Amino acid sequence: MSLQEIDALGLQAAIAQAKKSYSEGGIPIGSSLVHHPKGSTPKILAASHNQRIQKESATLHGEISALEAAGRLKAQIYRESTIYTTLSPCMMCTGAILLYKIPRVVIGENKNFVGGEELLKSNGVEVIVLENEECKELMTKFMQEKPEEWFEDIGEYTPGTD
Amino acid sequence: MSLQEIDALGLQAAIAQAKKSYSEGGIPIGSSLVHHPKGSTPKILAASHNQRIQKESATLHGEISALEAAGRLKAQIYRESTIYTTLSPCMMCTGAILLYKIPRVVIGENKNFVGGEELLKSNGVEVIVLENEECKELMTKFMQEKPEEWFEDIGEYTPGTD
Ligand SMILES: [Ca+2]
Ligand SMILES: [Ca+2]
Ligand SMILES: [Zn+2]
Ligand SMILES: [Zn+2]
Repeated sequence: MSLQEIDALGLQAAIAQAKKSYSEGGIPIGSSLVHHPKGSTPKILAASHNQRIQKESATLHGEISALEAAGRLKAQIYRESTIYTTLSPCMMCTGAILLYKIPRVVIGENKNFVGGEELLKSNGVEVIVLENEECKELMTKFMQEKPEEWFEDIGEYTPGTD
Repeated sequence: MSLQEIDALGLQAAIAQAKKSYSEGGIPIGSSLVHHPKGSTPKILAASHNQRIQKESATLHGEISALEAAGRLKAQIYRESTIYTTLSPCMMCTGAILLYKIPRVVIGENKNFVGGEELLKSNGVEVIVLENEECKELMTKFMQEKPEEWFEDIGEYTPGTD
């Protein structure tokens, strides 16, 4: 499987989770962690989504939720993996990627939000933005429907209401 | 209550959680989140501890666990709070502090591990290190007893074994 095929697989798993979250009334951000050491068959270790609304959670962003679902892993596993996320990772999720030294981050879109991409790059992490229309449209729709929940999720005041 | 008294309260809550975690066989890192807007009585919003061993968790570090236990909060609450942690915060927890724009971080000790203190400071976060002997001794003891769990918690190889 080529890296491009692995990326298509990983992003699709993340998008499926984003849609699932939206269908539950939650924030539609999904993420997956794919282990693809050279010469082995890639394996989706976990895929999950933002759980702010579903679990009243302040920390289960898409990426944190995927890392949590992947369970306890040895350092080496993270270093042979790529993390996929439908939206540019916030500083918390950026920090988690740096903690575990995940070398590649594939982002569905960064038009609705730009997180810690520069910090990732300056730490040697490969950052790929796919400009995926489906990710963009789903997130834009949610931000219009539930702006307070979206701003709460990134620790910001809701413009015009707070 | 003076800021110094609030800090003593917050750190003691974090230390109590670190000890609880140690007594459960877990990683002895505790954290608390204290809301102390000017002119109001300080309130401990949450206190918790690292849950790697107890919950097989890859993301519930002390600070993430305290933020999770505090539940969904409006942006303003974080900005009027201090987070306490028995050990210098790793990059993930540093990122969470930056996400929520928590303006003050009080650290029990940073001799056993130094996390994202410089990144916090360069983003305008006040960082105070108390050099607390109890924090230092408990963590040193754990790192000697269970080095593999400790290195796993910070995404590192265990020296000499991996
Ligand atoms: Ca509001
Ligand atoms: Ca080992
Ligand atoms: Zn995030
Ligand atoms: Zn941490």
